[in-house]
Amino acid sequence: MNPPLIHQVLAQLQDGSLSIEAAEAQLTEYVRALPFEDLGFARVDHHRALRLGMPEVIFGLGKTPDQIAAIAERIASRGQTLLVTRASQAAYDAVVAKIPDAAYHAVAQIISRRQDDLPRGAGTILIASAGTSDQPVAEEAAISAEVMNNQVDRLYDVGVSGLHRLLSCRDRLDAARAVIVVAGMEGALPSVVGGLVRVPVIAVPTSVGYGASFGGVAALLGMLNSCAPGVAVVNIDNGFGAACIASQINHLG
Amino acid sequence: MNPPLIHQVLAQLQDGSLSIEAAEAQLTEYVRALPFEDLGFARVDHHRALRLGMPEVIFGLGKTPDQIAAIAERIASRGQTLLVTRASQAAYDAVVAKIPDAAYHAVAQIISRRQDDLPRGAGTILIASAGTSDQPVAEEAAISAEVMNNQVDRLYDVGVSGLHRLLSCRDRLDAARAVIVVAGMEGALPSVVGGLVRVPVIAVPTSVGYGASFGGVAALLGMLNSCAPGVAVVNIDNGFGAACIASQINHLG
Amino acid sequence: MNPPLIHQVLAQLQDGSLSIEAAEAQLTEYVRALPFEDLGFARVDHHRALRLGMPEVIFGLGKTPDQIAAIAERIASRGQTLLVTRASQAAYDAVVAKIPDAAYHAVAQIISRRQDDLPRGAGTILIASAGTSDQPVAEEAAISAEVMNNQVDRLYDVGVSGLHRLLSCRDRLDAARAVIVVAGMEGALPSVVGGLVRVPVIAVPTSVGYGASFGGVAALLGMLNSCAPGVAVVNIDNGFGAACIASQINHLG
Amino acid sequence: MNPPLIHQVLAQLQDGSLSIEAAEAQLTEYVRALPFEDLGFARVDHHRALRLGMPEVIFGLGKTPDQIAAIAERIASRGQTLLVTRASQAAYDAVVAKIPDAAYHAVAQIISRRQDDLPRGAGTILIASAGTSDQPVAEEAAISAEVMNNQVDRLYDVGVSGLHRLLSCRDRLDAARAVIVVAGMEGALPSVVGGLVRVPVIAVPTSVGYGASFGGVAALLGMLNSCAPGVAVVNIDNGFGAACIASQINHLG
Amino acid sequence: MNPPLIHQVLAQLQDGSLSIEAAEAQLTEYVRALPFEDLGFARVDHHRALRLGMPEVIFGLGKTPDQIAAIAERIASRGQTLLVTRASQAAYDAVVAKIPDAAYHAVAQIISRRQDDLPRGAGTILIASAGTSDQPVAEEAAISAEVMNNQVDRLYDVGVSGLHRLLSCRDRLDAARAVIVVAGMEGALPSVVGGLVRVPVIAVPTSVGYGASFGGVAALLGMLNSCAPGVAVVNIDNGFGAACIASQINHLG
Amino acid sequence: MNPPLIHQVLAQLQDGSLSIEAAEAQLTEYVRALPFEDLGFARVDHHRALRLGMPEVIFGLGKTPDQIAAIAERIASRGQTLLVTRASQAAYDAVVAKIPDAAYHAVAQIISRRQDDLPRGAGTILIASAGTSDQPVAEEAAISAEVMNNQVDRLYDVGVSGLHRLLSCRDRLDAARAVIVVAGMEGALPSVVGGLVRVPVIAVPTSVGYGASFGGVAALLGMLNSCAPGVAVVNIDNGFGAACIASQINHLG
Amino acid sequence: MNPPLIHQVLAQLQDGSLSIEAAEAQLTEYVRALPFEDLGFARVDHHRALRLGMPEVIFGLGKTPDQIAAIAERIASRGQTLLVTRASQAAYDAVVAKIPDAAYHAVAQIISRRQDDLPRGAGTILIASAGTSDQPVAEEAAISAEVMNNQVDRLYDVGVSGLHRLLSCRDRLDAARAVIVVAGMEGALPSVVGGLVRVPVIAVPTSVGYGASFGGVAALLGMLNSCAPGVAVVNIDNGFGAACIASQINHLG
Amino acid sequence: MNPPLIHQVLAQLQDGSLSIEAAEAQLTEYVRALPFEDLGFARVDHHRALRLGMPEVIFGLGKTPDQIAAIAERIASRGQTLLVTRASQAAYDAVVAKIPDAAYHAVAQIISRRQDDLPRGAGTILIASAGTSDQPVAEEAAISAEVMNNQVDRLYDVGVSGLHRLLSCRDRLDAARAVIVVAGMEGALPSVVGGLVRVPVIAVPTSVGYGASFGGVAALLGMLNSCAPGVAVVNIDNGFGAACIASQINHLG
Repeated sequence: MNPPLIHQVLAQLQDGSLSIEAAEAQLTEYVRALPFEDLGFARVDHHRALRLGMPEVIFGLGKTPDQIAAIAERIASRGQTLLVTRASQAAYDAVVAKIPDAAYHAVAQIISRRQDDLPRGAGTILIASAGTSDQPVAEEAAISAEVMNNQVDRLYDVGVSGLHRLLSCRDRLDAARAVIVVAGMEGALPSVVGGLVRVPVIAVPTSVGYGASFGGVAALLGMLNSCAPGVAVVNIDNGFGAACIASQINHLG
Repeated sequence: MNPPLIHQVLAQLQDGSLSIEAAEAQLTEYVRALPFEDLGFARVDHHRALRLGMPEVIFGLGKTPDQIAAIAERIASRGQTLLVTRASQAAYDAVVAKIPDAAYHAVAQIISRRQDDLPRGAGTILIASAGTSDQPVAEEAAISAEVMNNQVDRLYDVGVSGLHRLLSCRDRLDAARAVIVVAGMEGALPSVVGGLVRVPVIAVPTSVGYGASFGGVAALLGMLNSCAPGVAVVNIDNGFGAACIASQINHLG
Repeated sequence: MNPPLIHQVLAQLQDGSLSIEAAEAQLTEYVRALPFEDLGFARVDHHRALRLGMPEVIFGLGKTPDQIAAIAERIASRGQTLLVTRASQAAYDAVVAKIPDAAYHAVAQIISRRQDDLPRGAGTILIASAGTSDQPVAEEAAISAEVMNNQVDRLYDVGVSGLHRLLSCRDRLDAARAVIVVAGMEGALPSVVGGLVRVPVIAVPTSVGYGASFGGVAALLGMLNSCAPGVAVVNIDNGFGAACIASQINHLG
Repeated sequence: MNPPLIHQVLAQLQDGSLSIEAAEAQLTEYVRALPFEDLGFARVDHHRALRLGMPEVIFGLGKTPDQIAAIAERIASRGQTLLVTRASQAAYDAVVAKIPDAAYHAVAQIISRRQDDLPRGAGTILIASAGTSDQPVAEEAAISAEVMNNQVDRLYDVGVSGLHRLLSCRDRLDAARAVIVVAGMEGALPSVVGGLVRVPVIAVPTSVGYGASFGGVAALLGMLNSCAPGVAVVNIDNGFGAACIASQINHLG
Repeated sequence: MNPPLIHQVLAQLQDGSLSIEAAEAQLTEYVRALPFEDLGFARVDHHRALRLGMPEVIFGLGKTPDQIAAIAERIASRGQTLLVTRASQAAYDAVVAKIPDAAYHAVAQIISRRQDDLPRGAGTILIASAGTSDQPVAEEAAISAEVMNNQVDRLYDVGVSGLHRLLSCRDRLDAARAVIVVAGMEGALPSVVGGLVRVPVIAVPTSVGYGASFGGVAALLGMLNSCAPGVAVVNIDNGFGAACIASQINHLG
Repeated sequence: MNPPLIHQVLAQLQDGSLSIEAAEAQLTEYVRALPFEDLGFARVDHHRALRLGMPEVIFGLGKTPDQIAAIAERIASRGQTLLVTRASQAAYDAVVAKIPDAAYHAVAQIISRRQDDLPRGAGTILIASAGTSDQPVAEEAAISAEVMNNQVDRLYDVGVSGLHRLLSCRDRLDAARAVIVVAGMEGALPSVVGGLVRVPVIAVPTSVGYGASFGGVAALLGMLNSCAPGVAVVNIDNGFGAACIASQINHLG
Repeated sequence: MNPPLIHQVLAQLQDGSLSIEAAEAQLTEYVRALPFEDLGFARVDHHRALRLGMPEVIFGLGKTPDQIAAIAERIASRGQTLLVTRASQAAYDAVVAKIPDAAYHAVAQIISRRQDDLPRGAGTILIASAGTSDQPVAEEAAISAEVMNNQVDRLYDVGVSGLHRLLSCRDRLDAARAVIVVAGMEGALPSVVGGLVRVPVIAVPTSVGYGASFGGVAALLGMLNSCAPGVAVVNIDNGFGAACIASQINHLG
Repeated sequence: MNPPLIHQVLAQLQDGSLSIEAAEAQLTEYVRALPFEDLGFARVDHHRALRLGMPEVIFGLGKTPDQIAAIAERIASRGQTLLVTRASQAAYDAVVAKIPDAAYHAVAQIISRRQDDLPRGAGTILIASAGTSDQPVAEEAAISAEVMNNQVDRLYDVGVSGLHRLLSCRDRLDAARAVIVVAGMEGALPSVVGGLVRVPVIAVPTSVGYGASFGGVAALLGMLNSCAPGVAVVNIDNGFGAACIASQINHLG
């Protein structure tokens, strides 16, 4: 709650500058007036940055460029970090017309503009991917983590069928404060990485594969059943989600 | 087909010792008289050893001890290799009463008696397992392969979360002519092994695990989607099936 | 790698006290001699505590009491933390006969003995559960986290159908350094918690429910699809796994 | 049954104006002549409005514009309410050519024309949706309910990751006679709403989401397993179906 | 919220009998002191009857008889309706020792004691079941509805393969204010009933069946895809859940 | 409908022996009084034999011996064929106490007593099974077909991995008027049989198998996807269902 | 086998017009020379009409128009019935260029030309469909059955939510020798029909529906679990397959 | 490891031409410098041919033509065999611009160039397919096997519904050293082939089929549950994977 406001109402009531009825109305109003903004089709949660330590992110899929631009403008107008995921070029065109310094990351399909005074993450987030085709998801994680003001180290194409590629980079694994592992197909890489590092591993299954990969289900199940300790999983292709939790970890005091 | 018999009938026909009707009957009979034996509830395929290079195996699940013993006796009576999988102690008791030199392998749940003159496999079949709980399936594979007269090397509890346990045994991997990899949970071990050896890898998912392992489905999907070349998969917990194909490979001239 | 050993071999070679052949053999041996112990049915990974910051944990399901006691003894003999999950009373009886000061936590089904000098986690791990029936899984997480030397705060039976029970405890949520949320049925609690806190949320689906809960699948899917940022998921009923990653987070410098 | 007709036939039989054969024929005919109309490719159930209190609705998917227009014309010709769901612009063009006062609701993909004398629902149907992307399904429910002559209150974008958006509208929740809750992803909103209101909650899972949302399955399972009482579920994306049952509830005497 | 309390605090503040600090503390306390009771393993939600119009129900599965009895005693001590579902005879024995006038319904597996002054439902709830084996679920619905003070009409064993059994009871269908339809196997009965009545149909799939019924999944899917309007579905075997929503409907003013 | 009754009522009305009111009542009653018998927990459909050409069969699973015996007695009291499937020995004991000449078929788990004057099927129903473990399902089909008065030919253990066992019996295949094929595991036998015969093949998947057979799902899918024409499928383990349709085919004029 | 040929060879051998070697070669050749024709990419099974009583049908999906035309020409060149299912207009254009009197049925997507002397089915095949959107599958069944020379009666749009549409046509149901029931969504129609007729019911699930219909899975499961006797099921959308088995039934002597 | 390098370093150390520090650095470097090449988006594993006996294959799906061409050039520059699977015409155009003698196999969607001195497989790999539509997958296997320098025998369109097509080619089956069986729909062909040959059978399910084939799942399950010994399975449509393991088998000494 907001002690100053409550205190002020009560003080005004006590000194007679507010009637009981007015005080009651103001307190009731306060509870209702939590800071979100109603655009009709969306309720922008400006309170989120304060509450969760990260911005309200716009999930671009299924929204029109105009809807995205309208929400983006409300966020930017408050000076908050802007982050749009699954954003098409068309969405970017609509956004940049209103927010000229917004950037577009094509591989990651992200529109971003970072607010100036975000706190800096304490260490490095390493992002390992199993194959070349996992790159878009890995980049969604990398860019998202960078927008949240983290140092990111990319270690791509180090799948388990050629272990020497991963093992030759153990010093980079050891230097990370959190590791995101992105893999499709059988999703075995997090188990191997989880057996090598002592920091949390966030596993991201991708929909890369064919046949019995079932759009990422095989990788998802593999990661959920990992025999290595310290592995937790996010949704298929959810690079952004992995970046969120890794950033929260990296920002712990 | 059986040229001698056909030839003999035709010769007898030609020299008049057989009438056309008798020749016709004999040829028709021959086609029907392929060597299986009808026990009413089972048709024992004695022809299989000749045709496939391996005995007709009795799958013990869902058969009574008496049924198992009856089929086993018919196989043993021909001097063929006896192999009963998923066999309980009760089934063994029924079998050994009729076939005194039958052996029982409790962990593998196998009853066996090997015929004397089976050809010897050319090399060694290595059987790697990921964890202690995979041992029953691994032993089903190992005993089955031994009964089919193969040299077997057991390499157990070398799961991917502690890679050094596997990597310290690369010489044994390199020495195998075929590798069977048994793993539950995420089933990642075949991918790692498949990236290290140049011989065929037969992967056996096990039902070891809990939750989203779904009785071995996670391991099965992981293995089917293996990013390593040279990996093929058999049914969940099917140690015997893996031994069959590994033995066929090991017996190739 | 182990610089002292490498250095010593090279020095001995240089000063002539080792032949090239002997030096070669020692270096090769070193690579192979990574510290695990082979019990035949298990390879105990004593190296794990050093490598991952947590002990090799014994997964009790599918192992006999004797197997559990044998592995436990090897771990305890090195003074390492002992942690057996999914352990029956019978398993405890076998363990305590060898390790008299081992403790048993019946609801959590855990056998434990903590080594003295484990580092202490920096903050508190809050464990929230949705319903009374989720308690065994929540306790597996809680006891595991305590054995790894973390302060734990239990907040049980705060499911989303009576939100006031959770909202009345926001100060305890805000005080945590990591939150574990345990829920069955629709698994909605992590989304609500994830919308309230700024620290990582580790979600544990439980198999509590019936009908279309499919043994925890409904809760698992709900958590993977959480609309709240900062939520990652472990396997169904895997309280221990959640404790691992929460402890790693809580031990970050 | 239709007592007047039966009575009339019997009376005519008794007074001799009908022979037994004619009476028999008329009664048999009556049973067969229930009021549907056979268009060859469709049997329009004009009886439905009488029987079920709602019109025969045309499900637009998989029908050609011409088929839709033909059925629509038969319904409109009887002065009954017209409601076509999943209707494209092309379907509307075909319909409006025959029924000039038919309306088109583009977001909801509905063609409608309401008959004049429909009974009015007793209270208000509140339609809550979790996110912006759920709007098309929510609008299908809203427009359908309005066509069936109900007062509708729309409360959109109040998902559980920002609870204050929902809690600030509790008076609108309390004022409803039935609540429809539309949500994709983890589908947790109905559980929260079900814990706040004492009227029936009809939950509509949507196919909004990606990865392990499996086209709405995660939301569907979440809703079926809701821990809140008073929640029932309709098919994925079935806004119309939710409106039907909510309207029936709202029209109860 | 609770205007009297808020008003009283403010009045006391205004007349000087409360300091600002004390008023602030009381208001804060009020928000936290919502009426639930913490038993350690459970938080009993006494507020629920007021909020939702139905008691907090104890789901008996996975709770010990002692836990059930303890929660039951707290509920009964407030004079609220007691309802325990999925309750064994042992649970009843524990409850009745503390609450002598609690009743046990063996087929429905329900323990109950109804508070005196519950409001009466306006009409009748008809419960139709498809086959004899669906009876336990149908009875769970029937007893639950009766405990919530509704008139119940049972119409059992009227499955679609013998339609005349259902059609001969159309008057009873027409007389209901809400219909619960309980069916396993293909779950077709709700579609037929939904095509005959103009009141809401709550469909309950049961786990009755074998083979490809998959424990009720076939019936569940059938009901979700019902071609009849006005059908909503609850979880497999969830007779209680159907009673909840039917009772809410039947208690609407 | 029942012309004689209708005719009689009308005639009585015409000749004055019935009033209009009485005639109306009788006709209404007639419609309602279709011949089923209400036992409270079951509505016995005596009309079925007339309507469908086969008796109302009692599905034994999930019914108590007393319930089974009560229904059986009502059926037997009308002289109709009695057929109880999935019947335990205990159920038989209860039935035979009331119907002394009822027979029990233990492998098929069927209780039966055939009425005397059932029409005889025109030809032979051949029942082929793939393996010894499929015998219980095959026998359920065989006994059911015999009770419905069909000639049955059993051809067991002719699975596709030893084709000569099947091919040697082509004359028996050719002699059948309908073929039931019972198979578990991969369920390939119906495709092979369907490619050999010109009469309908009813395929019955069994739950025989393990691992990825998923309780008969693999066999079910195999049969549904059969590349052979003339194959239709019934539920997993539903030997009785296959017998029904095969008997209907065999009784066609 | 072909007695005349065998007899002839043996006779020639006996009378000296054939040597043993020549006779042996002819018999061996005979076994191999079963009448199929190898086009390289396809082996046309001309033997099928003789063996199965129906033509080798060309499944059009996944074949190029040229491939279809080539196979069609080989079949037509022998005067056999031509039937191509899932055939596009382009495929028809290619076929009709080679076979001028081939016909195209656009709704059913079938190319056909019937040979003159096909035997006539004994009775009528009734094809019932649940909704307008099921028409393409129903027509695939209808045209296929007509091409196989059966009388077909079409009864479309008689779904269970308006039972009177079906019940008004009971005489047509009673007149059929086999019934094909085509339905999507919940697939309940076969259960209702199976409870009304005494001839075999072949159920065809269609992929019509949305959401939890899962492309026809809901209808498929509903049909497999039908509580009515005498219902067997074919693959989703497999109208042709239903026609095959219905035609075989209708052609039984 | 690489004895010459290790030996050389140690020798140089011993003769004083290397300091301990330099030797240590070289050995450390050696371990890290395993031969892969980092292109940024890909790490080309040149070591693979040596390690696994087969080239690093480029999986074309999800890579741009430019990425494919870049990786291809690095492989070709070392004179290694080039094999790109799932390659479009556009990918080939990009590759051939850099590697003029690369070949394109359109049906198999493969780009290849074989290095000169590949060892020759010992025998023949027979590739059997069930239907014409399975040809692309069968060709992927065939071309891949040929590129790996194996003799290939193609036996297409020999599905189980016309067994004589397969049985007439038993000599070709018997002549193979390994058999690849490609089948969609019910996937029964491997069981039949596995019952006829004594060499390993690699089964490839294809996504050919419709309805309940579920994109190859039915065939996959059928093959995993094969009742024939000696059958192992690869992923759906994974012709290349089958070729890998068949080639490894064919290259065994």
